[in-house]
Amino acid sequence: MFVEIVAAREELFAGCVLIGLFHLVGGLVKCLPTMTELFPDRLLAAIRAKGSPICVGIDPIIESMPDDLRPSDLIDTRACVDAIFEFTLAVLHLVKDHAPIVKFQSAYFEKYLWEGVEAYYSLIHEARELGLLVIGDIKRGDIGSTSAAYAEAHLRELTTDDEESATPDAITINPFCGLDSIEPFVKVAQEESKGLFVLVRTSNPGSAALQDQKLIDGRTYSEMLADQLRPLSESPALVGSSGFSSVGAVVGATQTHTMQSLRQRLPKSIFLLPGYGTQGATGEMTRAAFVNGQGAIVSASRSILYAFRDAKYTTKHGTNWQKCIGSAVLDMKADVAQFMK
Amino acid sequence: MFVEIVAAREELFAGCVLIGLFHLVGGLVKCLPTMTELFPDRLLAAIRAKGSPICVGIDPIIESMPDDLRPSDLIDTRACVDAIFEFTLAVLHLVKDHAPIVKFQSAYFEKYLWEGVEAYYSLIHEARELGLLVIGDIKRGDIGSTSAAYAEAHLRELTTDDEESATPDAITINPFCGLDSIEPFVKVAQEESKGLFVLVRTSNPGSAALQDQKLIDGRTYSEMLADQLRPLSESPALVGSSGFSSVGAVVGATQTHTMQSLRQRLPKSIFLLPGYGTQGATGEMTRAAFVNGQGAIVSASRSILYAFRDAKYTTKHGTNWQKCIGSAVLDMKADVAQFMK
Repeated sequence: MFVEIVAAREELFAGCVLIGLFHLVGGLVKCLPTMTELFPDRLLAAIRAKGSPICVGIDPIIESMPDDLRPSDLIDTRACVDAIFEFTLAVLHLVKDHAPIVKFQSAYFEKYLWEGVEAYYSLIHEARELGLLVIGDIKRGDIGSTSAAYAEAHLRELTTDDEESATPDAITINPFCGLDSIEPFVKVAQEESKGLFVLVRTSNPGSAALQDQKLIDGRTYSEMLADQLRPLSESPALVGSSGFSSVGAVVGATQTHTMQSLRQRLPKSIFLLPGYGTQGATGEMTRAAFVNGQGAIVSASRSILYAFRDAKYTTKHGTNWQKCIGSAVLDMKADVAQFMK
Repeated sequence: MFVEIVAAREELFAGCVLIGLFHLVGGLVKCLPTMTELFPDRLLAAIRAKGSPICVGIDPIIESMPDDLRPSDLIDTRACVDAIFEFTLAVLHLVKDHAPIVKFQSAYFEKYLWEGVEAYYSLIHEARELGLLVIGDIKRGDIGSTSAAYAEAHLRELTTDDEESATPDAITINPFCGLDSIEPFVKVAQEESKGLFVLVRTSNPGSAALQDQKLIDGRTYSEMLADQLRPLSESPALVGSSGFSSVGAVVGATQTHTMQSLRQRLPKSIFLLPGYGTQGATGEMTRAAFVNGQGAIVSASRSILYAFRDAKYTTKHGTNWQKCIGSAVLDMKADVAQFMK
């Protein structure tokens, strides 16, 4: 009898230990970070796989599209959105083997109101299905509670039943309002293993009059902004195994005079460099953004998408717009790949 | 016979003169500018008509809505958008006799993707039908060609068949990229007799670290920005008969330390002053923004929309959220009306 009781107690004890271990392991698993790779690591792997750090900007401008796709009635929203969808999908297929990442310019979709916005999310889904990483070029930024709503709209993975839509892997944000306007984006980016590119020095001619303003301490406005972003970009939870951060920076490829200074101030940030091609920047102008062949992506939009309006390509390919786009992306790929060495 | 011929010729001549005059007048009418009043004049007239320069911010946050409107399933996008529509429409009816203008915060609509964006344009139409002027708080801004697409999306009157949607009378824009990023917005605003409010000094706590940065010439960053905007805001084609410009400025009502300086630097700009109420600003704090009782609108969002969560109103009106909102807008109207004297 006594022996049975002891045996039963031992079984009970062993059972309790097992249950305890089960809960302990379960608790540990919950405490571990999710195993999704951080955005910078995914981006760097994609760059290695595709062989060049290029980003194709998706700026679908109906007036510039190939003649056979442009609708006859340019105020027919539905027809325009259908043309944008068809053209963008064709571009995605043409660039997918060469570009690790594409950048959707929200404005050209918003122009067609909610139907354009629906196409934006739908085409991002298509791009991701093709193995492309996607940046949503939305340049949002507002006071904290409002930025939180923008982060939900543009970074949070969709929970709706609509499996044909997706949010981008990263977005551009505008820091004008201050660091507290960026924090809600960082929170969602971290939760979803996504990325941010904060405007630091833009590519347009008029940017100098604001972003190169000299402060009383000798720095430019952009340098001060980079210094403020640095601690955030170096937060351990945001830095991947590659050493690069989920918080990147937008620095115009045209801004050679300040590229090195900004790179030194933001050593862990991936630089998104727009302005290649139509805006006048060359691959050579982006050299200072790279750290040991890594840490930057060079972006071109119109010079790729509308290459069939450039004599350089039409003399070779005639009216075949697909071949013109294909050639333009290969030219850019070769021009920029040199910086990976 | 001869007399008859002469009479007929005279009739013919008179007819030709009449036809000529008709074409001349028609031609002159075509050459005249359209007679639509400029945005600042329409706004000032609406302020006089309603008796107070208040702006109600439409920030529809589903979690904060009245219990009887909030859907049970918060991830059901359609149900959330329907609730936002119903709540916003109720708010518009409650404030329409007291507020000259309302400000729609785009982020809270974008959160519900394209269905939210459709509701945004649809509710703007409803607001305008109720005689309210509308600001679209979108804070967009990008390089020139992209800003042009944003201007088409958010300022251009809709040409679609959809008569149940409208664009706002004015929008907020973010000047980070420089003045060339603002010009496309100015162009469309001028063509459509609409208005702009350019961010100059925002209301959030973190704004000081960027916007109060001292430049080498002693001005703050915001003061420099105001100085750059001044010539644009004083362009004769943009200034109405009231003496105020279609190019206004966003200056946080919380920023009393710099209000007077910014007012002096932008004498013709209407100031949109967010931050009243929940963000801590009082009517008194906005005094320096007014010029002879004109030229500013004070904006409150959450303190009006969610007044039914404030003991000040629930002790009087219980769970009647409509009465709470109605009381809150009347309190604000009285508090701010004093500056019109």
